[in-house]
Amino acid sequence: MGLFQKCSRLSLRSSYMWSVCPQYSIAVTARETPDRALIVHWTQHRDVHNSRRLGANPANPSAAPPRLPFSRVTQEDLSFFRALLPGRTITDPDLLKSSNVDWLKTVQGSSDVLLRPKTTEGVSQILRYCNERNLAVCPQGGNTGLVGGSVPVFDEIILSTSLMNQVFAFDNISGILTCQAGCVLENLSHYLEERDFIMPLDLGAKGSCHIGGNVSTNAGGLRLLRYGSLRGTVLGLEVVLADGHVLNCLATLRKDNTGYDLKQLFIGSEGTLGVITAVSILCPRKPKAVNVAFLGCSSFQQLLETFQCCRGMLGEILSAFEFLDASCMNLLEKHLKLTNPITECPFYIVIETAGSNATHDEEKLHQFLEEVMTSSLVTDGTVATEATKIKALWSLRERVTEALTHEGYTYKYDISLPVEKIYDLVQDMRRHLGGMAKNVVGYGHVGDGNLHLNITSPSKDFDLLAAIEPYVYEWTSQWKGSISAEHGLGLKKRNYIYYSKPSEAVALMGSIKAMLDPKGILNPYKTLPDNIN
Amino acid sequence: MGLFQKCSRLSLRSSYMWSVCPQYSIAVTARETPDRALIVHWTQHRDVHNSRRLGANPANPSAAPPRLPFSRVTQEDLSFFRALLPGRTITDPDLLKSSNVDWLKTVQGSSDVLLRPKTTEGVSQILRYCNERNLAVCPQGGNTGLVGGSVPVFDEIILSTSLMNQVFAFDNISGILTCQAGCVLENLSHYLEERDFIMPLDLGAKGSCHIGGNVSTNAGGLRLLRYGSLRGTVLGLEVVLADGHVLNCLATLRKDNTGYDLKQLFIGSEGTLGVITAVSILCPRKPKAVNVAFLGCSSFQQLLETFQCCRGMLGEILSAFEFLDASCMNLLEKHLKLTNPITECPFYIVIETAGSNATHDEEKLHQFLEEVMTSSLVTDGTVATEATKIKALWSLRERVTEALTHEGYTYKYDISLPVEKIYDLVQDMRRHLGGMAKNVVGYGHVGDGNLHLNITSPSKDFDLLAAIEPYVYEWTSQWKGSISAEHGLGLKKRNYIYYSKPSEAVALMGSIKAMLDPKGILNPYKTLPDNIN
Repeated sequence: MGLFQKCSRLSLRSSYMWSVCPQYSIAVTARETPDRALIVHWTQHRDVHNSRRLGANPANPSAAPPRLPFSRVTQEDLSFFRALLPGRTITDPDLLKSSNVDWLKTVQGSSDVLLRPKTTEGVSQILRYCNERNLAVCPQGGNTGLVGGSVPVFDEIILSTSLMNQVFAFDNISGILTCQAGCVLENLSHYLEERDFIMPLDLGAKGSCHIGGNVSTNAGGLRLLRYGSLRGTVLGLEVVLADGHVLNCLATLRKDNTGYDLKQLFIGSEGTLGVITAVSILCPRKPKAVNVAFLGCSSFQQLLETFQCCRGMLGEILSAFEFLDASCMNLLEKHLKLTNPITECPFYIVIETAGSNATHDEEKLHQFLEEVMTSSLVTDGTVATEATKIKALWSLRERVTEALTHEGYTYKYDISLPVEKIYDLVQDMRRHLGGMAKNVVGYGHVGDGNLHLNITSPSKDFDLLAAIEPYVYEWTSQWKGSISAEHGLGLKKRNYIYYSKPSEAVALMGSIKAMLDPKGILNPYKTLPDNIN
Repeated sequence: MGLFQKCSRLSLRSSYMWSVCPQYSIAVTARETPDRALIVHWTQHRDVHNSRRLGANPANPSAAPPRLPFSRVTQEDLSFFRALLPGRTITDPDLLKSSNVDWLKTVQGSSDVLLRPKTTEGVSQILRYCNERNLAVCPQGGNTGLVGGSVPVFDEIILSTSLMNQVFAFDNISGILTCQAGCVLENLSHYLEERDFIMPLDLGAKGSCHIGGNVSTNAGGLRLLRYGSLRGTVLGLEVVLADGHVLNCLATLRKDNTGYDLKQLFIGSEGTLGVITAVSILCPRKPKAVNVAFLGCSSFQQLLETFQCCRGMLGEILSAFEFLDASCMNLLEKHLKLTNPITECPFYIVIETAGSNATHDEEKLHQFLEEVMTSSLVTDGTVATEATKIKALWSLRERVTEALTHEGYTYKYDISLPVEKIYDLVQDMRRHLGGMAKNVVGYGHVGDGNLHLNITSPSKDFDLLAAIEPYVYEWTSQWKGSISAEHGLGLKKRNYIYYSKPSEAVALMGSIKAMLDPKGILNPYKTLPDNIN
């Protein structure tokens, strides 16, 4: 009992507030052992002060809380699922393996059943049944999340959208696409490009991630600077609520002010309030001309000045302004054998333009490049207009995450800060950690003020971890930043929410959860902190 | 009792669902007469079938419901307010007049007190007191709404944001503005233009409307096509909840995925869930070049083809594509003495470009104009690049609403439809009404699929109204449109919500209202329908 001094669960009696029930879940867990929850990432348990701010396990706020008293899946349940989804109720442990572990292989669940419905009605029947039986459910898209949000923590039933991959409609006048939640982002991109449109979002995981998962996690990615967030581009959603009711908000209108915009509740709530089954989204025209420039800067200050100059001179054709530091480049060369196309620099920039007139775009880009080269803001650079070369330059930015996985163990932080502060955190962290870390690297979306801070060590190192956290969160909070800019909170970051949100806001989130999912069956242990007071 | 056969109110006992309490409120109302509610717009009461779909008063779903049993303002209450807001507690009936009636002079309340706090703390103390005393409150910004959402229906206390007009901060690197809710949109525009930025929204009412009201109503306006909706550009809000608690979500980050995005609840909920006291908003750079073209088309089909061509050729510099029909032009000439700058046509288009390179923009615009003139899509046109001429061309679109007010009585509809359908509704309505209406005119935002359908008669005409409604809503619903694209529902449209939203969605809205404002004191009788089942 020493380890988890407090735990919280959704109260069944109150629909308004989560209530903290000390010891109750622990007692249940103890009775129902063995629980097979295993957080590979976190295993050290130290005796430190119980901090209310950091939730159930103050020594290790990312660790899984005790299993909540959900029912266990019985043979009778399996019979129900098999009758409902013949051939699509998976219980073979080998087939379940990849769905029980996240992409980073840091969170390991132990679910015994994976359901693969094809229709909204199927999802509805599953949730109605699970809600009645008090069975917990983990909705899963492409399972590419980085915060342990898309895998079970214990034995939650995995509800996969992988067979829900139909495009319902595309209107080539308005550019509005309507499709099922399980469509893979890259497949949608190909579908649209054939029709002279593009998706308003793009990210490294596009080959696997599902649009439903993108919406559930409010994915940002590489095009946010230009096309804005999913909160603006998603026009409609169909969602199945915890009790199986289908909420049809699948509008295909650019403007609709009839009542509260319910779909916003489900964007970014990581499957904890409902399961998204279909999406309608506003897609931009495919640009007639795309150019990518890869530039080098000798300081972050020069990089920022280049960004300012770029926004002024490229204006409406600027579609991405990304950066990586020299340490990232070293890892790309070392592990992925990618070649640095320019001379070595402390900082590299990827600039993309997308416009409707190739001549105009090239002229703007060349004027900009001339300006930043003659003023010595940029020390070297290369430009690509041809698709293969564009892809090669982009891969230098997109494959940093992959390169890092070869380094041993990676501690990942996804931070929003005022743009002029983003690299200060990397430099300060290097000073702070001294020789403890193998690498402290920074890359990300300058245009959005979004830093991906990654710290590597040969293997898991809890002394290193203790030096990073909560230091990184305190640093972020001090500058009124966000401790999760685009990755979400999932399992790993849930208890750090108070560094970015006041307690009144978190309490209200708990009320919303309790209203929509009173039994708490949807993606438990995710997003919201263990203790909401 | 015949008139209002059912009425609903927020249940005090349940936080989960609105409950329908037949007759209860009626009884209270009868005891507490005189109630001075007067809906100027609607006075006819006919004996028709009670339609559940259309709420409390099926003959006249826009009419005010009976007064709910809120407390009446006492001398003791006034003493409290005067101590809290010395000199800013207005009870002089002459001074209250303009705050009791909407801009269109169609909804008339009878509030006896107008409060003008300067700070969030002031708003908090007012709401805490009103919630405890069960006093209803009508939040009011610039009072420019068109659906009766910003004026009291009975004796609700008017809580004005007019003295909350401070700019807190502007970051000229990120373009993020943070200000109080009562800042007038045009003042913010001037403030930003001096700093080489612009507001991401612009609308005809800019000289009076408040940014807090814009956000509360999710105002669309003229720049939505380019800069997207407030759901994407508003980065943070500070909101005072019904019980006086301050919810600080005033982030200034472009990306933040830490938990549910609570601010979205308050965008577009018309002050029924909380009072917005401060806003942070992402502002675009001021474009270096602006051009406006005013064109004529001989059919709506040609107008649509011009739109398609325009999107392709102007691409990223297109910032507005608006239209008005010949009837609108006649009214502009007749009542406002504006001059049509081109030859007479059935349809007129206002196209605005905004870009970073004047030469490129002019070249794109000229190429586009050459294309649409030589292909005869457009019959005549004029272009302005100079500010005064740009303003003059824009006024032809912006002042249509004003011209209509001179026509006698106007029935206003703000409809979203698939863009190729928007003028069909105008033509069909003309056929349907025959000689009953004086004018049936259409104008609006083609780029957003948003039609402003306006029907005039010399004076209020209930036979005409009965011919328009619910016909117009049924027509819209048949094409899966929105019965309120950007104006909101307010008092006038609240009971028509079911034409655009399924009952499950409306019930969930009721649950959210009950959770955040269990006594229902915030802007009662607005947004949600009288009967939620």
